[in-house]
Parts: sequence; C-alpha cells; structure tokens
Amino acid sequence: MILVDGEDRSQVPGDDRGLQYADGVFETMRAEAGRIALLDSHLTRLECGCRVLGFEAPERRSIQEEIASVLRDEPGPKVVKLLVTRGSGSRGYRAIGRNATRRILYTDDFPAWSPTCWSDGVATRWCVTRLAIGGPLVGIKHLGRAEQVLARNEWVEPAPEEGLMLDAEGHPVCGTMTNLFLVRDGSLVTPALDRCGVAGVARGRIIELAERDSIPTRIDRIWRSEVEDADELFLSNAVVGIWPVRDLAGSQRDVGKVTRRLQHMLDELRPPR
Amino acid sequence: MILVDGEDRSQVPGDDRGLQYADGVFETMRAEAGRIALLDSHLTRLECGCRVLGFEAPERRSIQEEIASVLRDEPGPKVVKLLVTRGSGSRGYRAIGRNATRRILYTDDFPAWSPTCWSDGVATRWCVTRLAIGGPLVGIKHLGRAEQVLARNEWVEPAPEEGLMLDAEGHPVCGTMTNLFLVRDGSLVTPALDRCGVAGVARGRIIELAERDSIPTRIDRIWRSEVEDADELFLSNAVVGIWPVRDLAGSQRDVGKVTRRLQHMLDELRPPR
Repeated sequence: MILVDGEDRSQVPGDDRGLQYADGVFETMRAEAGRIALLDSHLTRLECGCRVLGFEAPERRSIQEEIASVLRDEPGPKVVKLLVTRGSGSRGYRAIGRNATRRILYTDDFPAWSPTCWSDGVATRWCVTRLAIGGPLVGIKHLGRAEQVLARNEWVEPAPEEGLMLDAEGHPVCGTMTNLFLVRDGSLVTPALDRCGVAGVARGRIIELAERDSIPTRIDRIWRSEVEDADELFLSNAVVGIWPVRDLAGSQRDVGKVTRRLQHMLDELRPPR
Repeated sequence: MILVDGEDRSQVPGDDRGLQYADGVFETMRAEAGRIALLDSHLTRLECGCRVLGFEAPERRSIQEEIASVLRDEPGPKVVKLLVTRGSGSRGYRAIGRNATRRILYTDDFPAWSPTCWSDGVATRWCVTRLAIGGPLVGIKHLGRAEQVLARNEWVEPAPEEGLMLDAEGHPVCGTMTNLFLVRDGSLVTPALDRCGVAGVARGRIIELAERDSIPTRIDRIWRSEVEDADELFLSNAVVGIWPVRDLAGSQRDVGKVTRRLQHMLDELRPPR
C-alpha cells in the first residue's frame, strides 16, 4: 500500500524532486500491534534531515495520522517506510520558491528472516563498494543510496545476510543496511559517522542503553583489524533490532554476553513474534 | 511533457527505485531544430552510468524514437532531460532478479538566460557546500544530486548565475551545474574528476577541441588560488555550451582569447538563437 500525501495512490508525480535529485529523506520503521517502534526517534531524525536539506518537515500529526490509518487492522509485524521529498519543482537544482513537501508512506510485510538471525547470528562479508567521504549529507538518511544498492548487489545468494562497508580510505563504517558494533575487553565500540554513514535510530538507542548499563562506549574511527579481532560483533537497525555476527567473511564467532545483554535491553526491537 | 517508457503520462510508480534509492542516471540535453546536440556522447555516458550501477541501459533506438516524438513540431531551443532508473522493485537495497529499467523523458523550455551570459560572461561565487570524495559513483551522472541542490540553494537572487564547488578537502571541482576550465599562460586546465564531480559531455568535447587546436591541456587536482590567478575562466555544460566567467566572487575578469576560440569551435552548442 502507498499513501501519497495521505491519499491511497500508487503513483507519484514525475516532477517530484525526490526522483529528480534525491532531494529528500526517508525512514524505515518496524510496526507491531499497530505501533511504530521508536517513532519519536524516527521523526526527530527525519526532521533533522529535512533541516539539513533546507526544507520544512511535515507536521508530526499528519504523519502520525497517516501511519495509524495504514496500520489499522494490521496486528502483525510490518515494515513502514516514509519518504519526505521537497515536492514537485521546476527543472534545475534550484528549489524556486517554497515547494510543498511530499509525504510518501509505504507498508510492506516483515521480511521472512530466519529466527536464527537473532539467536545464532548472521553471516557477513566485506563489500568491495566503498563509501564517499565528507560533504553535507553525512549522517542523514537522504534518498541517495546508490552506494548501498551497489554494495548489496555484490552477491545474490541468501547468505551472507549482510555485507560490511569501508569508507573510501578503508575504515569500516557500517553494513549495507545496518550499523556496526564491536565489543573489546567489555567495551562497546562503534564507527564514528562524522565522514559518512547513516546515524541509525537503533544505533542511537543502543548507545543510550549501554550508558544506562555502565558499558563503556567509544565512538571512533576504526580499522578493519579491530573488527577482525573483536571479542563480539553485532549489527543493528530499526527493523531487525540487533543481529549478532556469527561469521565474518568465513571466520566463525561466538555470540557474546554484551551482545545478549543489549538484545535483552532493546525491548522496542525484540525478534518479531 | 513527460513520457514514461514511451507513454504520455505525468506520473511514475511510487515503487520506482530511482525515487527510493536514486538508483538511476540522467542526461540533460539541448535540442534545437528537433535535434539533440552531442546525442551520441550523451547516450554513451548514460550507458556507462548504467554499467556502473549494474543494469542494462535501454536500447538507443527506443530513446531516439521517443526523443523524436517529443521534439516533433518543436523547432525552437528546448531542454530535454532523460532519466533511466532500475525500474520498480521490492523494498530493500537488493535489486532482486532483473528489474525492467524505466525511461522517463522530459521536455522543457530553454531557460531565459540573458545573451550577455555568452558574450560578456557570468558572475560566480564560491559555495559553502562541499562534494564528498571517493566511492563508486565518481564521474557518473547518477540521480543523487542533493549536494548540488544544497549548493545552488545557497543564494536566491538572479545573480550570480553559478556557484563554484570545492571537494571535502578544499580543491575546486566544478560549478553546481557546470564544469570548470582555467586558462593559464595559454594552457587549458580543468579539475580531475577522479574523486568527485560529473564528467560533462560538453567538457569532453571541449577537451577534444583543444587537442585538435593544439591548445596544451592539463587535467589535474587544482587549488583555489589557481582559479583566482587564472588568466581566463569559463564554465561548460551541454545546455549552455561555454559561459565565460566575468566575475569571480566580486573580482572582475576579462573574457580571453582561448575562451572565445573554444566558444567558436564548439559549434554544437552555440548561444541559442
């Protein structure tokens, strides 16, 4: 189902600036029992992204009403995706006058991942495709995701479930659709997203939970060897929550205590029923 | 007018991967007397971009027929924009199976720029927005253009006509919608596009013409001071051809001999009648 500015439609105007220039942002969210997990954090990030792009975010109330309408009679887990674009505009990069932003809301079934992705962990590989460094879009979930598309299309088999991406200088940053966490000597480490990457909503929540649980946390530029030598590795996003890594490019790993502890604490994003 | 896969429509399916992920490329072209200037070069670059993104470009014959149909009874100068996306696809970065690519063709009036933009030159400013460095998308005209949108929206007044962009490390690369050329001691210099930027069709043609005319040409990483100290400066794209720069951030400049010579040689992209 697709709602465009609140109307049940499957089409979007061809002059939308989201299509023309990736002039917009999006959120991919988990719904369960008719509610979105971590909705406030999603809306805050969305508003932050709109501010970076220089247009006003839609009112929260409109978004909340539309989400409620698409989730009516949908008790099971779903994926809800919200795009906000600068709207229709004339040709050219310049956004003449004040375009009305456009909201596009999608619902989809929760993907059929195996329950073992949460219990035993997932397999990962290193992607060849690298992330560009710098510029104004760092950290926001803007629509320009061709780097992630290329990385995810490096393999077609069902496994591994995820690929890890390096930045253009070779520092590990994230998975194609997840953020990356390491545990070393009881400390949590996650790559700094000051030069590329998307600051995940689940990532932000995990950093909060670690602080609350007195787990020392470091947000830093990291090296590939640190990932390879980590005691524990896990991945996060706002749909799956936390997936332990059981296989890093063929090297087997155990699911550790800190990963289990954080999976338990992240109760908004437990394995779906 | 918008043609979607050859049909006269104004809407695009909401699940198009161009909108979802900027998973596509585009060309912006000048038409005059029913013909596209430098069409072969545009189609070659489009095919190169599709190859980088990992999908097949549409057949040239379909594109040529569709362009002919939108330009029928259009003698005056027009702008024709062609988007090619990976087409509709399921949610997620992975392009499952073989999506059928989608062609979206737009025609628009030639912008009402003053004839003095070609004769006397244009004014330029330095943009604050910088270009990210590296990654797999360097040089291709992919749909992710939010950096250019942000740069172009740094000012709203009619002048300056163009803004110059630096990469994340401070090297000048291009204008928001143009490539940049310098002349120094009779030599032509243009920024290398090995780390960011779009390899313009007009830029490629200008480099060919300079070689044919025995103008020494250097394609290199450049510094801001080289732009400021250049004997001549000009901008190029496949719609305007060559615009001399008469004003660089408030400093006045003359239009030089090499710029005039190349404007004269670039006969596919003369000032429009």
